[in-house]
Amino acid sequence: MKEMKTITVVGGDLRQVYLAQAFVQSGYTVYAVGFDAGVELPEGIIAADRADIALLLCDAVVFPLPMTLDGKTVNTPLSEHTLELTQCAKMLPAECLVFGGRVDENTQAVFERTGHPVEDYFKREEFAVHNAQATAEGAVEIILRELPTTIYGRNILVTGFGRISKALVRILTAMGAKVTVSARKYGDLAWAEIYGCEGVHISDLGLVIGKQDVVVNTVPAVVLPRKMLSRLDPGCLVVDLASKPGGVDFDTAKQLGLKTIWALSLPGKAAPVTAGEIIKNTIVNMIAERRETDGKD
Amino acid sequence: MKEMKTITVVGGDLRQVYLAQAFVQSGYTVYAVGFDAGVELPEGIIAADRADIALLLCDAVVFPLPMTLDGKTVNTPLSEHTLELTQCAKMLPAECLVFGGRVDENTQAVFERTGHPVEDYFKREEFAVHNAQATAEGAVEIILRELPTTIYGRNILVTGFGRISKALVRILTAMGAKVTVSARKYGDLAWAEIYGCEGVHISDLGLVIGKQDVVVNTVPAVVLPRKMLSRLDPGCLVVDLASKPGGVDFDTAKQLGLKTIWALSLPGKAAPVTAGEIIKNTIVNMIAERRETDGKD
Amino acid sequence: MKEMKTITVVGGDLRQVYLAQAFVQSGYTVYAVGFDAGVELPEGIIAADRADIALLLCDAVVFPLPMTLDGKTVNTPLSEHTLELTQCAKMLPAECLVFGGRVDENTQAVFERTGHPVEDYFKREEFAVHNAQATAEGAVEIILRELPTTIYGRNILVTGFGRISKALVRILTAMGAKVTVSARKYGDLAWAEIYGCEGVHISDLGLVIGKQDVVVNTVPAVVLPRKMLSRLDPGCLVVDLASKPGGVDFDTAKQLGLKTIWALSLPGKAAPVTAGEIIKNTIVNMIAERRETDGKD
Amino acid sequence: MKEMKTITVVGGDLRQVYLAQAFVQSGYTVYAVGFDAGVELPEGIIAADRADIALLLCDAVVFPLPMTLDGKTVNTPLSEHTLELTQCAKMLPAECLVFGGRVDENTQAVFERTGHPVEDYFKREEFAVHNAQATAEGAVEIILRELPTTIYGRNILVTGFGRISKALVRILTAMGAKVTVSARKYGDLAWAEIYGCEGVHISDLGLVIGKQDVVVNTVPAVVLPRKMLSRLDPGCLVVDLASKPGGVDFDTAKQLGLKTIWALSLPGKAAPVTAGEIIKNTIVNMIAERRETDGKD
Repeated sequence: MKEMKTITVVGGDLRQVYLAQAFVQSGYTVYAVGFDAGVELPEGIIAADRADIALLLCDAVVFPLPMTLDGKTVNTPLSEHTLELTQCAKMLPAECLVFGGRVDENTQAVFERTGHPVEDYFKREEFAVHNAQATAEGAVEIILRELPTTIYGRNILVTGFGRISKALVRILTAMGAKVTVSARKYGDLAWAEIYGCEGVHISDLGLVIGKQDVVVNTVPAVVLPRKMLSRLDPGCLVVDLASKPGGVDFDTAKQLGLKTIWALSLPGKAAPVTAGEIIKNTIVNMIAERRETDGKD
Repeated sequence: MKEMKTITVVGGDLRQVYLAQAFVQSGYTVYAVGFDAGVELPEGIIAADRADIALLLCDAVVFPLPMTLDGKTVNTPLSEHTLELTQCAKMLPAECLVFGGRVDENTQAVFERTGHPVEDYFKREEFAVHNAQATAEGAVEIILRELPTTIYGRNILVTGFGRISKALVRILTAMGAKVTVSARKYGDLAWAEIYGCEGVHISDLGLVIGKQDVVVNTVPAVVLPRKMLSRLDPGCLVVDLASKPGGVDFDTAKQLGLKTIWALSLPGKAAPVTAGEIIKNTIVNMIAERRETDGKD
Repeated sequence: MKEMKTITVVGGDLRQVYLAQAFVQSGYTVYAVGFDAGVELPEGIIAADRADIALLLCDAVVFPLPMTLDGKTVNTPLSEHTLELTQCAKMLPAECLVFGGRVDENTQAVFERTGHPVEDYFKREEFAVHNAQATAEGAVEIILRELPTTIYGRNILVTGFGRISKALVRILTAMGAKVTVSARKYGDLAWAEIYGCEGVHISDLGLVIGKQDVVVNTVPAVVLPRKMLSRLDPGCLVVDLASKPGGVDFDTAKQLGLKTIWALSLPGKAAPVTAGEIIKNTIVNMIAERRETDGKD
Repeated sequence: MKEMKTITVVGGDLRQVYLAQAFVQSGYTVYAVGFDAGVELPEGIIAADRADIALLLCDAVVFPLPMTLDGKTVNTPLSEHTLELTQCAKMLPAECLVFGGRVDENTQAVFERTGHPVEDYFKREEFAVHNAQATAEGAVEIILRELPTTIYGRNILVTGFGRISKALVRILTAMGAKVTVSARKYGDLAWAEIYGCEGVHISDLGLVIGKQDVVVNTVPAVVLPRKMLSRLDPGCLVVDLASKPGGVDFDTAKQLGLKTIWALSLPGKAAPVTAGEIIKNTIVNMIAERRETDGKD
């Protein structure tokens, strides 16, 4: 495999700027396309006026997360211009590697037509894990800001025991919260207990919900319907980390006067530099794995 | 579903005795079959002289782990008699639930023929998780016993990041060891880092192996061949937790004069009471899930 | 000893309001004096229009932290009136217990003259410990808010290893920071290492200061003079938790363009409810110890 | 201050041999006196046939812990000869530093007479802290060996909250035990709670003692008299780590059929190499502090 020396970063928000910076710090030559709307790029990143040249020169190109919002143009919130996916695909050199986030089938097809299948960093486990840690820290920041008490000594319920929950309860238990995890799978409950939480089967949620000071939902399904919300202590803080439609019946929560915070996309908001580095590190791993596989052929 | 009141435990080692005891402590009537070779049963367990009656009377029957060694008879190391699988299957009442561990296809077929499909507790995630914790504690005991130093301050390499590794590194990091985890998947390395370890891709194992004071293998594939073993410090302790064929080249390890311990089936050896309770708790969960599903019909 | 039934809370800020509330929740009759400037008292607290009656009726009286600012009147920031210490001392019933925070010698003398020595909750170890935890959480909130990265993976230096540091590093290490503790005493460094940090003697601070992403000072002496500050990475965040004069040369820090936050009195600001509860719990302990001692006589 | 190059280690058990080895590994020239009774010294240590020459040549001399048993001769369990303290004191060169463990007044006087005050490493906080960690690991090894269950899930009571307890509960909580700490001081209970334990005042010990699976005593006073022991579950394991007279009424424990283990001097037994290194590191710190002080003069 050709050595990677030059990387072009196309579109995206601040995260991609920090991603470009992270590549610069690792010694790559980095072109940036799509940051013309008043963004000041950190030192070392070469702002490319012309996308075609930046694409022609690169060994790898990195598209944003998500790669496109409309299915036709690159997602470029920090640019005043539009950039068509088909156009990009045509400009790439033959051996150029292409990376993108949350790549849809149509976009994949566009790039495969020019021989450039897009590798999706959003699907990578290490990307998800490190994002979970950043999300967990963002959630802790929210809880610390909102509570008039310490986290220490509080009863905190976390629903679900996926990546975000695992990262979150590690912090909350260390801070001295009494953490209860509710989940459907007994295997998840077993892990929650080993990690210092009380595990409660989702069918027994009603038994513990009334004594909670904070509820953090991580499940993208309504696990906190009216029946559950109405049993909460009126002073309980509800933080929903689940992507749409979320796991909380927000209308009911509002009626009940519960303080509810729906926190989405925390890594990009609470830790944009880290969010960029996570994508960069993931791509470095993807290149390393490719090299390993190539070496075996 | 019929209420569970009477449980018959058939065969197995000390673990099954403690499993029977755990059911007694939870209020069940418990018959035990296959513990006639000088075993003293704890109070409350009814030793059944005749297997047929104990089986006829029960709402559920629990076979050992593994359920059979020869494919024909129940695994009864603590009995002087043999008990045929086909015979057992025939004696069971119509609605009796059947639980067994590591049930092979043939055994399954035997019991299905009489309308008693065997539910395998060995396949349950919570069983695996709690066993992993027990294994981890057993490994810590071995390391504490063998090392002339504290675990605190030691460099310890753990290969693989499955359940046992996760449980083990939680203890070792808390004890102050500097733990390195090697794995093939970058997602596993990401978790290892979040859990306070250094993550090293398996392809870079050679870079860190020389400075280790202890190596614990959890991968059932030879990850420590001669090339790696020969780079170890001569005083390094090697503990292999992987089931056969293990992950260490034991012949080479012996030639090199390395202290190597192949520790198998630790839960049953290091914590037999807990090992029995784990099976009991798993079966309780299986019954609860069944009830839940039944309730929905 | 007489049973404690009625407690009068005199003066102070919101913390004392929450302290009063905490006593109400524990079943005491609670009078509050000195909260007339537009404060809405939580349900159950009896706002006393006349201080003399509230004091006459009580079994114990709780003064604020600090008890007085001018040495003559009670510290009552939430009142439009002043209340003289001598006056209070005279109104107390004979057996009334008196509690105050940071009681100076003169105030002590005033109350001793009427036979009511003031017991200082500020001097109690459990008060200091729980306040340290609240301070640590406040510091974590600041770091999370200010950093554009996660705490995970960051190099964080904590100077000193007293109560606040101990509480703080427990959280930071669980979040995945690489924490270095600098201290003068080798015993402190030993504890820091056992608690998962790198310990660096203060005389070697220069060797590690350059690589830090965050520095948290807890020592009330200038441990970060110009010589040290000038070696910091320009992007390093400096948080000073030490009471006046603080441990950072703030003028130099400003000249160097360092982001510096001097965070004082964090418990009352970040967690006022907990701050009140801590005082309440401390007083409960003081009463219990007194009872124990009395019982022995 | 003269540079330290040559160190003579005089007397003691295996710990002192490993201490000598640790000095060799740090580049010192090391003579050993008092290991003539069949001990094989590790490579690099120079066995001195004549004590007088080894003492004459050294920059520092290290005596064992305890330095003497009879007040007259050096404690030399691994030697067939005796070595008088007065003789040693006379042979030392003028600038030689002298280190010893648990130095009594008389011994101190002997060495002061020749201008060689003995510095006691046993009094150093970092020595005590690291020894506490080694003791805690030894206690965990005992518990793991003796319990037929995992530590995970067990109720464990630790009496007292000094150094050993602090080190011990860090490990036990990470292993998933439910740890209760009993102490007399509310400040200690506050720390115990922050470190993830339940804190119970010693006067309430009776309320929690009955549910314990393991009791570990660290207090050198009888905190477990008959009244308490008789309330223990008959299967409860009692481990006493307190130096003589211990904290357990052993006769009563025996009558009650309780499994009781009195574990003394665990560092030297469970981790002799570390025990030696701890002394060595402590002496290195003592020399560094002396240099620092000298530098200021």
